[in-house]
Order: sequence, then C-alpha cells, then structure tokens
Amino acid sequence: MKSRDVLISSSGMTPSAWRDRLAALLPGRSVHLAGDAFDKNSIGYAVTWYHQPGSLADLSNLAAIFSLGAGVDHVFADPNLPDVPIARVVDLDLTQRMTEWIVLQVLLHHRHQRRYESRQRDKIWIEDRDQPAAKDVRVGIMGLGELGADAASKLANLGFQVAGWSTRRRELPRILSFAGDTERDEFLARTDILIVLLPHTPVTQGIINLELIKRLARDGALGGPFLINAGRGALQNEVDILAALDAGILQGASLDVFQTEPLPASSRLWSHPAVYVSPHIAAISDHDAISRLIARQITRLEEGGRLEHVVSREQRY
Amino acid sequence: MKSRDVLISSSGMTPSAWRDRLAALLPGRSVHLAGDAFDKNSIGYAVTWYHQPGSLADLSNLAAIFSLGAGVDHVFADPNLPDVPIARVVDLDLTQRMTEWIVLQVLLHHRHQRRYESRQRDKIWIEDRDQPAAKDVRVGIMGLGELGADAASKLANLGFQVAGWSTRRRELPRILSFAGDTERDEFLARTDILIVLLPHTPVTQGIINLELIKRLARDGALGGPFLINAGRGALQNEVDILAALDAGILQGASLDVFQTEPLPASSRLWSHPAVYVSPHIAAISDHDAISRLIARQITRLEEGGRLEHVVSREQRY
Repeated sequence: MKSRDVLISSSGMTPSAWRDRLAALLPGRSVHLAGDAFDKNSIGYAVTWYHQPGSLADLSNLAAIFSLGAGVDHVFADPNLPDVPIARVVDLDLTQRMTEWIVLQVLLHHRHQRRYESRQRDKIWIEDRDQPAAKDVRVGIMGLGELGADAASKLANLGFQVAGWSTRRRELPRILSFAGDTERDEFLARTDILIVLLPHTPVTQGIINLELIKRLARDGALGGPFLINAGRGALQNEVDILAALDAGILQGASLDVFQTEPLPASSRLWSHPAVYVSPHIAAISDHDAISRLIARQITRLEEGGRLEHVVSREQRY
Repeated sequence: MKSRDVLISSSGMTPSAWRDRLAALLPGRSVHLAGDAFDKNSIGYAVTWYHQPGSLADLSNLAAIFSLGAGVDHVFADPNLPDVPIARVVDLDLTQRMTEWIVLQVLLHHRHQRRYESRQRDKIWIEDRDQPAAKDVRVGIMGLGELGADAASKLANLGFQVAGWSTRRRELPRILSFAGDTERDEFLARTDILIVLLPHTPVTQGIINLELIKRLARDGALGGPFLINAGRGALQNEVDILAALDAGILQGASLDVFQTEPLPASSRLWSHPAVYVSPHIAAISDHDAISRLIARQITRLEEGGRLEHVVSREQRY
C-alpha cells in the first residue's frame, strides 16, 4: 500500500504535540492538523479525539480512524462517519495506570480512609476493630475487557473476592464470572464494591442509575455498597447517585468521569462527604507510547498486515 | 508432655476475651488472667502483650511465651524474662491486612491523593499530566520478613520497581535484593518510597532519623522521597521526620506507629499537610485466627512437636 498522510483531528489533548510525535515516527509523509490547508485526497489516516462531526466525511482515500484513547464513543458521536475501520488504544501503560487508580479507590473505601483523615484533623486516636479483611469483601467489575481483567487480577491478588460481569462470558483465573442480562442481578446482589469499566454505547448510556444501585449488596462485611466509575460519565445518572448516597443506599463513591466535564462547580458531588471526585485522570496515558502504537499500526497496514484493536460498528466498542 | 495451664498477661487488648477464646480452644485446662488467684506452678504457657515486667519470673514450670502480635519487642522489655522459648504470631490474615494498608499508603503518595482532595474541596478541575507510571517509581522495603516479602510481591505486581533490604540477604522473585550495612546506602539512594517493616531491637531503635532520610533518592520521577512506617514507633525519630518534611528533604509520610501511643495531641504530625496519621491500625489482627494459632502451638508442643516462629534471644526478633 502507498504511504499516505495523517490528519490529527482532536478537541483538546494538544493536537500539535501529537502531530510532532507522529511526524517524527512516520518520516516521509505529512501530518496535518484539522485547521491546516492540505489536500483532502492525500489523507489516509485520521487520528481523533472528539473530532468535529462531519469533518472526516469528504476524505476520499481514508483507510482507518484511530481513537487517541481506549474509548471510541467520541468517534461514533459523528453521524457522518466514513465507513472505514476504527481502531482504539490498547496499551499496557494505560491499563496499568487505570489499575493503580482503581486499586487506590477500592482501598480508600475498604480501609475507611475518610474516617481516619477526619479523625486526624480532630487529633482523635481510636483503634477501631471493625475492619474486615479483603477476603471478606466482594468486588464486582462491570466490563471485563483489557482494563477490567487487569484490575480484577490485581484485586484478587490483594485477597478480595472478585467477580466480573460482561456481555459475553469471559473466564479468568480466580474471578467469578457472570454474563448477560440474565445474570446481571445475581452479580449485583453479591457485590459490595462495584467498579464500572463499561464502554459508552447506546446500550450502556445511563446504566448506573438508582435501579442498579438498589440491587447491590447491603449486607456485606464492609457496610457498603460503594461505587467506582472509571469508564465514562455518560454511563452514570448523577441525580440518582446523589439520591442513593443521601438515602444511605450507597455508602460512598469514587468518580473520575462525569456527565459534564469539567464537573460544574454547582454539582453537589464536589462537596459530598462520601464522594471522591477526580478530574478524569484515572489513566492519563503515555502519549509517546500511544504515538508509537498508532505509528506501528499504520506501518503494519501499509506493509499488508492487519489493523489491530478494531472496534465493532454494531456494538460501538 | 502433661497438659498445663495458660496465663494471659496483657496490657490492653481485652485480656478476658483472649482467655475466653483460648479456654474454648484448649478444653481440660485452666486459662487465667494476670490478676486472678492461681497456682503459679500450674502455668505452662504465658500469652503476652506488654506484660508487667518481672511478672513471669517465678513461673517455675513455664514452657513457652507467646506474643499476641508479630512483634516481640514488648516481651524483651522485661529484664527478668524467664529463659524459655518465645514465639511470635505469623499469620496470613495479619500479613494480608498489613499489605492492604501499605499498598494504600504507597498509592496515596504515588497518585497525589492529597492534591486531588484539596482541589476537590476548592472545586478545581485540573487534568495534571505529571503522573509517573508505577514502573517509573522505586519502592524500597526495609525488613523482608513475612510482612515485607508479601508487600514487596504485591507492589511489584502493580508495576512498581521494588527493592528490599534486610540484615541477611533474601532473594525474592522480581525484587532487587540488598543486604547488610555495606549495601544500605546504595539501597536508600535508589528509593523513592521507603517502607519500614523492621522489628524493634536495640540495633533498629531510632533508625529512621535525618541521616537516613537524607540518603533517600531526591531525583525520582515522583519528586519524593516518601516515608511509610508500619513497623514500630520506636524505629522513628519524630523530631527528625518533621524537620525533614519542613526542609523539603521528605515530601510526605504515612505513619501508623509513633514513639508515644496514642500520639499526643501536641504532636505536629497530626496537622502536617504531608503526613497521613493512622492509630496503629495497619494490621488489626483476627483474634480468632491468632487464638487458633496459639492453641495449635500448645497442642503440638504437648504432642512432642516443635514450637514454630520462635524468635532469637540474641537478635531479639
């Protein structure tokens, strides 16, 4: 295949930095930014992060679209998307960073960190004896892709009872496996700490609502349940989460993603005493590693190889 | 060996609860508390936690002393200790709880949790990009016994570069090994996050001082160094730790143990913004499991078996 040019079409994420990295990794071709003047017929590859909808429609020689992240919901948000393969980022570095954040959030709730910090502020020394061991706490992960499987393995290694739920059944060592709509309620009923790592699709939109939260275990050793969302803000109904927290149906939450980002100052999530808010930094990725991954994909494709990590148009992930 | 009685000699830790558990597990013998009236010649085993010094001296048939914890410094604090074997607690449950706490503290520092919580209070959304991955951060563990080895393995599993230092060399998979006085400075110089799990002995008394802290890495990806002490308060010089924090030689600390416990309200550690204080709860142990361990040791000994987890009088651990 002939060597073609690259278009960086990204809102935020410093497009020029991506252009410079990819230009260095892919010598002998041009790498353009969306606002540049360039020949649309020269573009073979679009590298995107929340690109302008419609802006890829008239690239007649486009061969592939690359998402700059693990999620591709932002790509499918374009109703005039050309019919070419779409690849997402699957990167060990990104996976490990996500697992770091998830393990931290699980332990923050499991070890009552907010309680101890509040006592530290008040200089109060109390040796509580109500700390269950990890082996008595049931973690449930919705979404068992690369990210979910890695977090599951590391949490099991720390001693937690870990289960996973996914659309198609996935068997992993030491992880209790649930699959499909029919097993969802059983999975939720045995979960003290719920971790959501689902992709954002029309099916998962708003899935974290009061009805789901009410089905989580309330008799667990930890006095939960707790919610951790590291997937996408569009998965969650924040009004429902706050209602569940206020009603004591949910004991605490860690949210890295929100329905609107940045999270508006008016949101009560910022100040709720049982909520950890972080600004979408769970898995800030290694831009050099992602650039190398995309450059490798382009080179492999032009050498007659197969594109990897291609998403399904039907399932939208 | 004839079945002998048991004496619980403990300050704090609710002695009567230990008596009830051990009496249930060891039927056919008496279990006494230190204040009870009993025949001193009947006592074969002393179960201790900061016992009254001298109170074991005239137990003429004493066969063994059991510490209620992993540490035995409180036993050796008695200058009139009878010359019988001393066994400590080595318990998987205690080990796993300690590892939970250590992994939480490492991740709190590694992922800048205090920074994000401060911003949450101020409702400030900033997507920092200065987060190094675990693979770029060097953790060092002083003390590679049961506790240190387990924490090392779990931290390596999360991707950290882990090294251990111990008096006698201990080789563990994926863990860089340092040993003895001659390799101590090299170990400290490559350590961004120092975890201290040493026993308290005359040799380790006050070992965490300004001289040691100054030798830690200051050029690391995390902008450390950081200190985590989950061993014993007597290992640390709190005046030196505060001086190092104030001078920016130390970036942060997690302390579960203190020179005086409870930590006095007058200590500046309570309110220092870079210090996590917890009230000696890193590894609150499962009293049922420890009772079963001690009962098993006594039964095994009387059946002609060998006492396990016996400490060295010379090394005092």
